[in-house]
Amino acid sequence: MATLCRPSIAVPDHVLTMEQTLELARTLHADHPQLGLALRLIENTGVRTRHIVQPIEETLRHPGFEPRNGVYEAEAKRRVPQVVFGALDHAGLGVRDIDLIVYVSCTGFMMPSLTAWLINTLGFANDTRQLPIAQLGCAAGGAAINRAHDFCLAYPQANVLIVACEFCSLCYQPTDLGVGSLLSNGLFGDAVAAAVVRGCGGTGVRLERNGSHLVPDTEDWISYAVKGTGFHFLLDKRVPTTMKMLAPALRTLADAHEWDVSGLDFHIVHAGGPRILDDLCHYLGVEPEMYRYSRATLTERGNIASCVVFDALDRLFEDGGAQESARGVIAGFGPGITAEISLGRWAAAEPLAGQRRPAAEQRAGVV
Amino acid sequence: MATLCRPSIAVPDHVLTMEQTLELARTLHADHPQLGLALRLIENTGVRTRHIVQPIEETLRHPGFEPRNGVYEAEAKRRVPQVVFGALDHAGLGVRDIDLIVYVSCTGFMMPSLTAWLINTLGFANDTRQLPIAQLGCAAGGAAINRAHDFCLAYPQANVLIVACEFCSLCYQPTDLGVGSLLSNGLFGDAVAAAVVRGCGGTGVRLERNGSHLVPDTEDWISYAVKGTGFHFLLDKRVPTTMKMLAPALRTLADAHEWDVSGLDFHIVHAGGPRILDDLCHYLGVEPEMYRYSRATLTERGNIASCVVFDALDRLFEDGGAQESARGVIAGFGPGITAEISLGRWAAAEPLAGQRRPAAEQRAGVV
Repeated sequence: MATLCRPSIAVPDHVLTMEQTLELARTLHADHPQLGLALRLIENTGVRTRHIVQPIEETLRHPGFEPRNGVYEAEAKRRVPQVVFGALDHAGLGVRDIDLIVYVSCTGFMMPSLTAWLINTLGFANDTRQLPIAQLGCAAGGAAINRAHDFCLAYPQANVLIVACEFCSLCYQPTDLGVGSLLSNGLFGDAVAAAVVRGCGGTGVRLERNGSHLVPDTEDWISYAVKGTGFHFLLDKRVPTTMKMLAPALRTLADAHEWDVSGLDFHIVHAGGPRILDDLCHYLGVEPEMYRYSRATLTERGNIASCVVFDALDRLFEDGGAQESARGVIAGFGPGITAEISLGRWAAAEPLAGQRRPAAEQRAGVV
Repeated sequence: MATLCRPSIAVPDHVLTMEQTLELARTLHADHPQLGLALRLIENTGVRTRHIVQPIEETLRHPGFEPRNGVYEAEAKRRVPQVVFGALDHAGLGVRDIDLIVYVSCTGFMMPSLTAWLINTLGFANDTRQLPIAQLGCAAGGAAINRAHDFCLAYPQANVLIVACEFCSLCYQPTDLGVGSLLSNGLFGDAVAAAVVRGCGGTGVRLERNGSHLVPDTEDWISYAVKGTGFHFLLDKRVPTTMKMLAPALRTLADAHEWDVSGLDFHIVHAGGPRILDDLCHYLGVEPEMYRYSRATLTERGNIASCVVFDALDRLFEDGGAQESARGVIAGFGPGITAEISLGRWAAAEPLAGQRRPAAEQRAGVV
């Protein structure tokens, strides 16, 4: 069965604290009629620090979409290889063991996708499948896990590398002055993450079932306006209430698996904001402690989009993992509004050396 | 086994002939030092007509990335439903039978992707998986078929809807004056396509094996420069030589399946340009007649990006299909440079009424 192994995460060196963020908002928007509300919303996020790829002075300048996207590409090429090798190490695999690379990122755009550069530069086989996803936003971390799971169901000997690359600071739009934009400017952070889903063996979450749920008629609640200045993130004020609709989807999927979602042993969810975590406690009848990993990600790194679920999962590993066969849920939430949900059990067994596939004929495609 | 059923295609009403294209090039680029070369290259494409979503006068204007992308969204919403229902009819399925929507499009950008709108508007179930792919360009048609095949291998009762939406005319960039750009301006056309891959039953191509191949170090041969004016298509002059590298990949995948690629019964390939088809004949030892469907697509509609393979496949259906169990290959080619290749057999059996799944519990996820 497919196992989601320990992720590898990296954040940039430039740190922005809550105090700096509040001070910036006061300085940049001194005359804003809703400054007080924006400051309260930012304080309520609980985001103490964020990491960003450029110094704050650079981040606040908008040099145009083209140079911005150039920074995205350069920083992705600079930062992603480290987490790729970290994730492969955690999985006990090498580049030649990977059959599919799922690349998720919504904060820059490249065609060809970074997958082609990764294959050429890091030595992956030329028949490695490429699955770049740019339009699932913060739900893409969950979607990547789920599509990797599906791929391993199709090809039980296959291994999938997931890469998430989110430089949210490169989507800062100084001319966006709505309260939702001011809040977003205080919420999002930058990070890169990678994780391997092994078809056989591996330590981590043995994936058992996945599902997706779209909340009806909420397409414009989280969206990009695509402009000459790049992607403009639009956040509707109703978004924080979304868990009222998505908690039942989590429960329904667990029910179909004959699991009680309120009785699971671990929850690794997208920490879009504090309300999401508070509401999940309420609607699922789960203790706040259950979301300590997701909350720590939010507090220390902000909302790092599709990287959140990997960062939170890494904290579970760091904490020693769960008991053998402990049952848990992983969920990404993002535009649509979409939830990508996965159910699995902790598998602590170390991969055996013999499970590393040596031969080309074992690659996916031999069905 | 997964069966790729008959696609549904639609093209816009505005027609641009080869003569009009040549006249436009002469008028717009009268002083261009390489006008003669550009005209010869355009003539050599053999593209007699193309269909575009706006009148030519509108197409030649660049109103900015934002209004351009607005046209993309409006035209997608106007044109895609028709082909979706056409494809469902061909497959003998309804919206509630679909477990995954793969949406491929590289000529506009939306977040959330059109998948959310399709689910909300056309009545798909809220747990339909969404897989939007924007960065595989002309290879995305092949990639969509292959990921749909994988999904049906994972969930043998599942059905996948593929949608391809390409309005290449909305990527026209009047300031791009390289010969490659002038050629591209005479090559690409607009179209929308949809097709269903049925997990069980259905008439069409029974998918047996798929594979991907990346040609080393050709990332910059086909690419987008992402600018404030939108996506700028860059076409290297070496691209027409690509089949020398990709024909062996087709042969290798067929060999792994114990098929001789030179002896197949049908070839449905991306018709990026005439040289691709000529070279495939040469390198694979196949008669030109074998590429008549792909060539007809190119001649009548131009290079319609990820829609080409569906348009060419539709022509095979229109022609009465192939013999039962006839063996064939489907291949998309695009940026990377990437080939997405699929092998399958023609299955003429009509779907049985009983194969239409009535109940929710038969949806993917019950593994």
